[in-house]
Amino acid sequence: MALGWEDIRAEVLRRIEARHWAPGTLIPTEEALAEELGCARTTVNRALRDLAAAGLLERRRKAGTRVALHPVRRARFDIPVTRLEIEGRGQSYAFHLIEERRAEPPPAVASLFRSLPGVPLLRLRGLHLADNRPAIYEERWLDPAVLPEPAPDFRRISPNEWLVSHVPWTGGDIVFSAANASPEEADILGCAPGAALFLCERVTEAEGRPITSVRLLHAPGYRLRADL
Amino acid sequence: MALGWEDIRAEVLRRIEARHWAPGTLIPTEEALAEELGCARTTVNRALRDLAAAGLLERRRKAGTRVALHPVRRARFDIPVTRLEIEGRGQSYAFHLIEERRAEPPPAVASLFRSLPGVPLLRLRGLHLADNRPAIYEERWLDPAVLPEPAPDFRRISPNEWLVSHVPWTGGDIVFSAANASPEEADILGCAPGAALFLCERVTEAEGRPITSVRLLHAPGYRLRADL
Repeated sequence: MALGWEDIRAEVLRRIEARHWAPGTLIPTEEALAEELGCARTTVNRALRDLAAAGLLERRRKAGTRVALHPVRRARFDIPVTRLEIEGRGQSYAFHLIEERRAEPPPAVASLFRSLPGVPLLRLRGLHLADNRPAIYEERWLDPAVLPEPAPDFRRISPNEWLVSHVPWTGGDIVFSAANASPEEADILGCAPGAALFLCERVTEAEGRPITSVRLLHAPGYRLRADL
Repeated sequence: MALGWEDIRAEVLRRIEARHWAPGTLIPTEEALAEELGCARTTVNRALRDLAAAGLLERRRKAGTRVALHPVRRARFDIPVTRLEIEGRGQSYAFHLIEERRAEPPPAVASLFRSLPGVPLLRLRGLHLADNRPAIYEERWLDPAVLPEPAPDFRRISPNEWLVSHVPWTGGDIVFSAANASPEEADILGCAPGAALFLCERVTEAEGRPITSVRLLHAPGYRLRADL
């Protein structure tokens, strides 16, 4: 039976594990491995790409493939539309818009958006509910230039869902941390002041410029799962 | 000048954004797009793969490529060796081993490891320090079968670094959450009891079976950054 790419990956892993190929070692070419192991070069390529994505190998176009000196484990997670994430857990979803107004952002946000002094952004605050209980409190700044005329009704569709389905993002970053609930946040999320909350701060870009920044405070008990 | 894959991606994004291709729409084949846009099919393929990885397109081998109905944003982050993460911030690193003993794990851990009743695992507790200040408190269970004879000296190398550089992992999962510091944890991390701590719970597998599970409590102020 022909070897599959998983077989090749297992064999390469075994050699790394056995220190037959030590950290930093240049391993044989794909052609040489294909010949030695009796499989197609594309099969070797698939296996090596997988191990490189996992951080165990380092591949350079001309310099060849080395065993990583310090393997970096790379994790991935999906960020679905909040409504779908909640409904996917079998819970009912609702969004409650708390505030929508034009306002001048604080300096840190203004410099992020490179917005001009005196030109306001859209300030949106709202609460995502799961089975009628507070799940995520979001505080958002949004560049109103991305909105069509007439603007969407954020009492009917959350800014999160509207943005994901109408504005293709091209990049951004996310920072996760933990924060003690302020008295106001505790009141909105229905928890004790000081409770440890999972905080996600996200900046989303479209065509290379930030279009929205959001602070997402999750009610106690939230867990974010990622795959290694 | 020939179009690069980024140009093709920008054009496809523009069509999705303009709703020229609405969510759920089957888009033209790679061959048709290559001909229309005047570039190589491989260039179109590179652009579409990138958009699919970002969750904006859904590709099926025989059914073709559709605009995603509910785009899922996929984020990635790297998990370096803790020492390298701290040194990478320009801080000095140290590891202080608090406890190392054989012990029977609690039922949840035992069932995860499918360990036999009466067969102990290795229990390790330690503190990672950055510039001599507590950074991460780790509580770990480790299958002693992965250790060589003689076993590594975890006072000299942290279990984290030893495992990453000696045991190739093949999978696992990570859960992030927030937790209020218990009095004991606050004492170890040098923070106030009740402080909101970023918690990372990780199970790592090698060859399809769990080899270690670890609970990593980060001192207040920790932020985990991911790329969209």
